[in-house]
Amino acid sequence: MFVADMEKKRKIAYKKVIDAINLHGGTTILSTGITGDDARLAKAVVDAGIKLIEPNHPAVALARGFKGVTNMHAAEEIRHEIPMEEMIKVTKGIRSVVGKDIFITVGVPGGFCEIVPTELPDEVFLQLSREGADGLHIHKASLKDLEEVVNKAHKYGLLVDAYIGHPDDLHTFGLPAGTPEEVSKVAKDMENIGVDFIGLMTGMSYEGAEAGEIHPIVKERLQALVESVKVPTLAEGGINLSNYKAFANTGVNIVVVGTAIDDAVRKAAQDVVKQFII
Amino acid sequence: MFVADMEKKRKIAYKKVIDAINLHGGTTILSTGITGDDARLAKAVVDAGIKLIEPNHPAVALARGFKGVTNMHAAEEIRHEIPMEEMIKVTKGIRSVVGKDIFITVGVPGGFCEIVPTELPDEVFLQLSREGADGLHIHKASLKDLEEVVNKAHKYGLLVDAYIGHPDDLHTFGLPAGTPEEVSKVAKDMENIGVDFIGLMTGMSYEGAEAGEIHPIVKERLQALVESVKVPTLAEGGINLSNYKAFANTGVNIVVVGTAIDDAVRKAAQDVVKQFII
Repeated sequence: MFVADMEKKRKIAYKKVIDAINLHGGTTILSTGITGDDARLAKAVVDAGIKLIEPNHPAVALARGFKGVTNMHAAEEIRHEIPMEEMIKVTKGIRSVVGKDIFITVGVPGGFCEIVPTELPDEVFLQLSREGADGLHIHKASLKDLEEVVNKAHKYGLLVDAYIGHPDDLHTFGLPAGTPEEVSKVAKDMENIGVDFIGLMTGMSYEGAEAGEIHPIVKERLQALVESVKVPTLAEGGINLSNYKAFANTGVNIVVVGTAIDDAVRKAAQDVVKQFII
Repeated sequence: MFVADMEKKRKIAYKKVIDAINLHGGTTILSTGITGDDARLAKAVVDAGIKLIEPNHPAVALARGFKGVTNMHAAEEIRHEIPMEEMIKVTKGIRSVVGKDIFITVGVPGGFCEIVPTELPDEVFLQLSREGADGLHIHKASLKDLEEVVNKAHKYGLLVDAYIGHPDDLHTFGLPAGTPEEVSKVAKDMENIGVDFIGLMTGMSYEGAEAGEIHPIVKERLQALVESVKVPTLAEGGINLSNYKAFANTGVNIVVVGTAIDDAVRKAAQDVVKQFII
């Protein structure tokens, strides 16, 4: 692959993210869930000002009723079975309607910690990149696996957003790090291998935060991340309209929002049809 | 194909529709648009009480960002290019999440008036029927073409809902009939060839009805339909929360609702993300 061309592609994509962060006062939204894979709703949120979009394979499983899954926990169990062709088509479709200035990062089978053997061959990186992806949304759980993905992604002009989880998380969505010191160390390791955007999973392990607040342990971990790296940072999981300001106040640059939108959309559809049939 | 088995399949499907009409006091909803092809939202509206669901190929074109289409007019231009395999997968996915008691009628390439040559081979009827369709949502524009579809549909255990349009409609979505007398005659012709549910396009031709009312010409035409046939009747096009009661008062049994839900869903997604990024 042509190295300088792909460097240029990555630079253009990186600028989209930086511009969005600046436009939205330091913290922007990565819109996912139904707005990540349904072209009608991706277009709708982009029209409303969203600059970053994330299709991913578990959400596509839910969108397609794949194997009858109706909740995220069930979708995580079978996400690796979503055909790669489907994710490439989703990427192409979303790109077709949102235009070239929107940043699209894609979650694909093999890109998460998949204990069912799932390869991610060069051809997939090439096709995703050609069909409209700017980046890959990666939830690998080891630095070595992550480095392999980062190198291939960069080769084909794709950036990588990757995540840190807690060792006790129910689902493994990133490199494990418990204490703020461990978060800081892992984040620096990720930066060193070239991860372009580093995130923390914020909704997986802790319950009992006050409405509108971040759990103190999550806050400490998130601040450790934000203070440890120079690349843009993300928070993913459990973020809604009530606690969003508290998250933004940590200085995190990108907040991943899926469920909060999915829930509102589901409720809107139900509210309309209930009015018709009562 | 086994005749009696398929008769039995049709009888079970027919009962789903009759039960829904009775349950909802004489007029029920056929939910389409995003609730017809996105399994998350099909499940949501079924949980809210909807019994009849309609995936169709132009809506799937919009869902997938197929060829970059972002509005229904553009989708109608390329709908025949949606691969049949996609519609079969959609049918299977929706059936997987809504369960066996929901009536699913499917719009597929070839089932509408498609002036681009589009065949509808027996194999498609068989596959749709096996993967979960109860019926086909048909917008053929001639009695002869419609009869061909009805015969094949019945052979494979599928019911048919088909429609009457106005000769001056922008898009051709049914058999043409202008005056109430013509509507009555065409409806009886459709009933005679075995159409199971007969609909009238109600939102294509007329502007200027008062909010909450039906345009008098549409009302006359709809009443002509309702009074002319014994099979359940449908109204499709331009029906929303404001004019729904007026439609139900004509005695029509099924009201097709798509845009009213799509608009509410789109607005809900936009409202949420705007609150995040302001």
